[in-house]
Amino acid sequence: MNAPRDLPDAGAVRAAAARLAGQAVPTPLLSSPLLDAQLGCRLLVKAECLQRTGSFKFRGAYNALAQLGAEERRAGVVAYSSGNHAQGVAAAAQCLGIPAVIVMPSDAPAIKAANTRAYGAEIVFYDRYRESREALAAGIAAKRGATLVPPFDDARIIAGQGTIGLELAEQAAAAGETIDVALASCSGGGLITGCALALAEASPGTKVFAVEPEQLDDMRRSLLAGKRVSNDPEARSICDALLSPSPGELTFALAQRLLAGGVAVSDDEVRNAMRVAFEALKLVLEPGGAAALAAVLAKKLALDGKTVAVIASGGNVDSAAFAAALAGQ
Amino acid sequence: MNAPRDLPDAGAVRAAAARLAGQAVPTPLLSSPLLDAQLGCRLLVKAECLQRTGSFKFRGAYNALAQLGAEERRAGVVAYSSGNHAQGVAAAAQCLGIPAVIVMPSDAPAIKAANTRAYGAEIVFYDRYRESREALAAGIAAKRGATLVPPFDDARIIAGQGTIGLELAEQAAAAGETIDVALASCSGGGLITGCALALAEASPGTKVFAVEPEQLDDMRRSLLAGKRVSNDPEARSICDALLSPSPGELTFALAQRLLAGGVAVSDDEVRNAMRVAFEALKLVLEPGGAAALAAVLAKKLALDGKTVAVIASGGNVDSAAFAAALAGQ
Repeated sequence: MNAPRDLPDAGAVRAAAARLAGQAVPTPLLSSPLLDAQLGCRLLVKAECLQRTGSFKFRGAYNALAQLGAEERRAGVVAYSSGNHAQGVAAAAQCLGIPAVIVMPSDAPAIKAANTRAYGAEIVFYDRYRESREALAAGIAAKRGATLVPPFDDARIIAGQGTIGLELAEQAAAAGETIDVALASCSGGGLITGCALALAEASPGTKVFAVEPEQLDDMRRSLLAGKRVSNDPEARSICDALLSPSPGELTFALAQRLLAGGVAVSDDEVRNAMRVAFEALKLVLEPGGAAALAAVLAKKLALDGKTVAVIASGGNVDSAAFAAALAGQ
Repeated sequence: MNAPRDLPDAGAVRAAAARLAGQAVPTPLLSSPLLDAQLGCRLLVKAECLQRTGSFKFRGAYNALAQLGAEERRAGVVAYSSGNHAQGVAAAAQCLGIPAVIVMPSDAPAIKAANTRAYGAEIVFYDRYRESREALAAGIAAKRGATLVPPFDDARIIAGQGTIGLELAEQAAAAGETIDVALASCSGGGLITGCALALAEASPGTKVFAVEPEQLDDMRRSLLAGKRVSNDPEARSICDALLSPSPGELTFALAQRLLAGGVAVSDDEVRNAMRVAFEALKLVLEPGGAAALAAVLAKKLALDGKTVAVIASGGNVDSAAFAAALAGQ
């Protein structure tokens, strides 16, 4: 999509917020006095699972698609995604009357494929461990003259996801809260770096941490190494939304400048966070959407007495997987 | 608690809203374009399961307790409840520094008892089918000089629950929506009549319907009969929060004046609504909290092309029961 290779800034996030007004749900900032008492910190949960399409991805997709010209809109868009970006692009395309093709792994949760179709998109499946989704999507884009919408390494996508951080800062300020630490899940890094951009301007005292699955903690290790490193292709996690092999170019450049670091969570810690969100917050979180909460509950950082914000980034999980997580399986 | 036996009015709801500001969560009004397309109506879901304590009951309890005098506060409060009123009273009492005793059925969901204890209340259990909770609570109140906080038939409780209707009307107006029909679950009738009071003033064109479990539809039948009738004591439902035997005096008087009618939903229809809330809205609803949504999904009323608001009134459900509902059991 002729993505500008220069980095987005906080102004781009503000512009995205103006574009998204009336389109994206201003998701609520929730808390639980019982949970605060158990944890010994003040926990604010940005319930982004209540966003249109059930995850944060609608924001970046809409911000990118809304900037396409008339001819680009007519030729349509193509995206590859483990599911949430697919739904985000499909829903944003539907809002704007743009045809969309989604390249999706064949093992994506059934609900994500069904919803993507319900938003009017065409789906092309691929094998996550044998085919290159990038090549497949690029081929389709070339053949149809369509615009490729990358999942994270794009200034417009990053700025769109960053509107969550902007809303978070505004909601916290309105509630008289000062956020010491903010955590969000990280796959390619669009969400965490977008939020960090917004928070750096709107809540400059906040330390921002990326949360990844164990063994898929490429951002954490990349930050420590000072260069982009990749995950073992054999690494697995229940967090189907957090399986990107390495940080993006843009997202890593932003992460180096803006993040305080990264932490990794186990599948069991993620399941526990899904249970806690169910019990204490009445929210349905998918594994990847519960990762940031998991990091707090598992005390990956010293947060005693602090005010901590987590992005609960998505809730698209099959009922069987959710029931298994509630049962501790 | 020396409850005024005169009926609350819309002014009492506005006064309650002022009292609750900064204490109750202004719960979000959610929607799902996919659900709207499937249903053929515009559906607005007031996510009151995200309220403090996981149900609407905090509102009425806080509004009642905040009006107690210093001496009454010192002597404490007593309440009987299937669980949500218990948590509401316990949390409100904790906010205000008032000791609380809760009389709770021995078959209440474990999570409701555990949370009630976590809010600092003392619990006394009773057998739902053999003992009179009213007599037990009255005895404790007499012995301790404590104030009995009734679950629904009290002007202050009704006005507190009515703040949901007021918020709903304000949120709908802000979003440019005009509510044709509003539905809320009904046990004793505090929620539905409080909301109807508020809507009669703030959204006068809205028709309001009470939703009850099949065979426990005492309000529906009472409205048809023109007098208060009771349920068969043998009647059962998965909606553990909606088992009151008959409408209250105050709530029935308000219902006769303000409600368009009542509808009844089956356990299967309620389970389906819990699944839909999980999938389309990412909300955890308990059976009673899903009843109003169930009535819409099961097309109990002709709603084609209408704008319909439902109160998703609570989310306090054990994980095993929730998993069973997701699995259709």
